[in-house]
Amino acid sequence: MSLQQKVDISREIQRITLAHGSGGVAMRDLVENEIVTAFSNPHLDALEDQARIDLRELTAFGDQLAMTTDSFVVDPLEFPGGDIGTLAVNGTVNDLAMCGAKPRHLTCGLIIEEGLSLDTLRRILSSMKKAADIAGVTIVSGDTKVVHKGAADKLFINTSGIGVIPEQTDISASGAQVGDVVIVNGWVGDHGATIMASREDLSLDTQLQSDCRPLYSEVNALLKSSAVHCLRDATRGGIATVLNEFADSSDVRIVLDQSAIPVRDEVRGVCELLGLDPLYLANEGKFVAVVPASDAENALRALKQCPGAENACVIGRVEAVTELRSYAGVSMKTTFGSERMIDMLTGDQLPRIC
Amino acid sequence: MSLQQKVDISREIQRITLAHGSGGVAMRDLVENEIVTAFSNPHLDALEDQARIDLRELTAFGDQLAMTTDSFVVDPLEFPGGDIGTLAVNGTVNDLAMCGAKPRHLTCGLIIEEGLSLDTLRRILSSMKKAADIAGVTIVSGDTKVVHKGAADKLFINTSGIGVIPEQTDISASGAQVGDVVIVNGWVGDHGATIMASREDLSLDTQLQSDCRPLYSEVNALLKSSAVHCLRDATRGGIATVLNEFADSSDVRIVLDQSAIPVRDEVRGVCELLGLDPLYLANEGKFVAVVPASDAENALRALKQCPGAENACVIGRVEAVTELRSYAGVSMKTTFGSERMIDMLTGDQLPRIC
Repeated sequence: MSLQQKVDISREIQRITLAHGSGGVAMRDLVENEIVTAFSNPHLDALEDQARIDLRELTAFGDQLAMTTDSFVVDPLEFPGGDIGTLAVNGTVNDLAMCGAKPRHLTCGLIIEEGLSLDTLRRILSSMKKAADIAGVTIVSGDTKVVHKGAADKLFINTSGIGVIPEQTDISASGAQVGDVVIVNGWVGDHGATIMASREDLSLDTQLQSDCRPLYSEVNALLKSSAVHCLRDATRGGIATVLNEFADSSDVRIVLDQSAIPVRDEVRGVCELLGLDPLYLANEGKFVAVVPASDAENALRALKQCPGAENACVIGRVEAVTELRSYAGVSMKTTFGSERMIDMLTGDQLPRIC
Repeated sequence: MSLQQKVDISREIQRITLAHGSGGVAMRDLVENEIVTAFSNPHLDALEDQARIDLRELTAFGDQLAMTTDSFVVDPLEFPGGDIGTLAVNGTVNDLAMCGAKPRHLTCGLIIEEGLSLDTLRRILSSMKKAADIAGVTIVSGDTKVVHKGAADKLFINTSGIGVIPEQTDISASGAQVGDVVIVNGWVGDHGATIMASREDLSLDTQLQSDCRPLYSEVNALLKSSAVHCLRDATRGGIATVLNEFADSSDVRIVLDQSAIPVRDEVRGVCELLGLDPLYLANEGKFVAVVPASDAENALRALKQCPGAENACVIGRVEAVTELRSYAGVSMKTTFGSERMIDMLTGDQLPRIC
C-alpha cells in the first residue's frame, strides 16, 4: 500500500464522535479548525456566541429587514447538481429574495449523527461556502450538535437568514389580480426528479441535475422590469402548491396552460415511472410570479437575460371567481383540450426532498 | 370507559405523519392550525415565507444587530423545570443577551420524527410561546420538516434570533484584565444534573429543576451597575469551559475559589453518583461575568435584586501569566487548600444535554 493510500484511508476513517458535540476540546477543534475555517470571515473568526452587524450598513439597502429560517433534511446528502449544503444556503437566500430582499447574512446550525465521515462534512461545508460566495451572503454565526448513532440521519442543516427589502417593495401571496399572467423562470421539477432518481433504492440512470441556485439577481431583474403582484419559490409541493396559495390568498382562479409549462423529457420520464406529477415536484431554483399582462413581455425579456432563466415563460393567467366557477383555486387546460383541477397535495408524495 | 377517557385516548393517538412535512394540505393544516396559532402574531399570521421587520424599529434600540443560532436536541424532550421548547427560546435569547443585546425576534425550525404525538408537540409549542412572552421576543418565521421514523429522535428545534446592541456596548471573551473578579449569577449545574437525573435509564428521584430562564434583565442590571469585561452563558461544557475560553482569549490565568462556587447538595449528589464534575455541567440560566474588582460590590448588589440571581457571588479572580505560572488557563483552590487545574472538557461527558 502506497503512502498516499495510507493517508487517504486514515483521512477516510476520520469520523464525528459524540465528543465533537460536548462543548469541550474536540468540539472546539471541530468548530475552529473545520467550520470556522471553511466559512472564514470576521464575524465567525471572532469566535463569539453571536455575530454583531452594523445596523447602518443594513439601512443603506432599505427600510425593512426580511428574516427567515429553513431546516434541510434531504436524503441523500449529495446528489447531481448539489448537496445539502448548496441547498441550505440557496434555500434561505431564495426565501429572502422572494420578498425582494437583498440577502445579507446567514446562520448555520448543524445536527450531526455520530459516525458521519469528516470528509463528507468537509465537502458539504465547502459547498456551503461556495454557494454563500455566489449568493453574496456571509455565514456569520453557527452552532453544532452531535447526536448518538441512530438519533438522526447523517446530517441536518438549519440556515436562518436576514436581508434588506428596498423601500416601496411590497410583494405578497395575496396580490394576484384578474387579468394578471403567471410566469415561471424555467424548467419545472428538476430538483424533485433528481432526488427521487438518486435515491439508492431506485438507482435510475439519468442526466438530470438539481436546479439548486440563488435567485436574487433574477428577482431583481424582474422587479426592475415589471410590477410584481405575487412571487414565491416553488420548493416543497412544487408550482401547484404555490399557485394554490396565491389563488387562495388572492381569492382568484388561476388557469394554467399545460402545453406552456416547461418540463424536461427526463423529468416526465421519472414522473411516469414513479407515478408523480411534475407540477408537485420540488424545485430549488424556480419561482412563480404573478405580474400584470401588460408587463409580461418586459418581464420575460429581463428574465431571459439572466443565466439560468433563458426558458422563462408565461404558463397561465388569473381569472375571476364567478357564479359558475365559484371557488378560488387552480385548474389546467390540458394538451387534450380538457380542464382539470390542480389541488393542493394531499399525501406524503416526496418526503425529505429538501 | 368514561367519555372523557375516550376523548383523552383519541387525542393521544393523534400523531405526526410524513404528510405533515410534504408541503401539501396536511402540512398547511399543521402549520396554520397548530404552529401559527400557538405563536400567533402579525408576522406569522401573514403566512409568508419570511418576516418583514421595520428597520427603524430596530435602530431605535441601538446601532448594532446581534444575530445567533442554536439547535436543540435535548433528551428527554420534557424534564423538571422545562422542555425542549423553553430551552430553544431561552438558549437563543441568552446568546443574544450575552453581548448586551436586547433580544427582539426569533425564528423556529422544527425537525419532527414521524410518529411524534401531536399532544407532545402542542405542549412544547405552548412552552415556546410562554417563554417568548416572558423574554419579550416574537417568533416571526418558521419551518417544519418531518422525517421517517428512526431518522431523528422525536423532535429537534432550531431557533435563530436577532437583537439590538445599545451603543457603546463592547463585551467579548478577550476583555479579562489582571485584578478583575469572576462573578456567577447563582447555583451552578442545575440543568445538567436535572437532565442526567431525568434520563429513563437513571430514574433518580430528586427535587432538582433545570434553571432554564431568560437572562436579559440580569445582564441589563449588570451593565448598568458595573463595567463588564467578559460575559458568557455557561451552557454546554459548564462554567469550566467558559472560563477556559475567557482565559485563553484574554491570555490570563483565572483562579477559582472552590468554597465560593454555589452548588446545590442535590447537584453534588448526582455528580458523585455519576462521576461528573459540577463545573462542567450545563446551565441554562447562568452566566459567568468578569468585572473590575472595584465594581464587584455594585454588580452583586444589582444582580441580587433580580429574581433568580439572589445567590450571585464572586467565585474567583483574574491573575497574570508569569514566568512561574506560564500558561493561560483556569485553576481552582480546593476546599482542602490545594490548587488543581480546571482544563477544557476532553471527553463526551454529557451528550444531548441541550
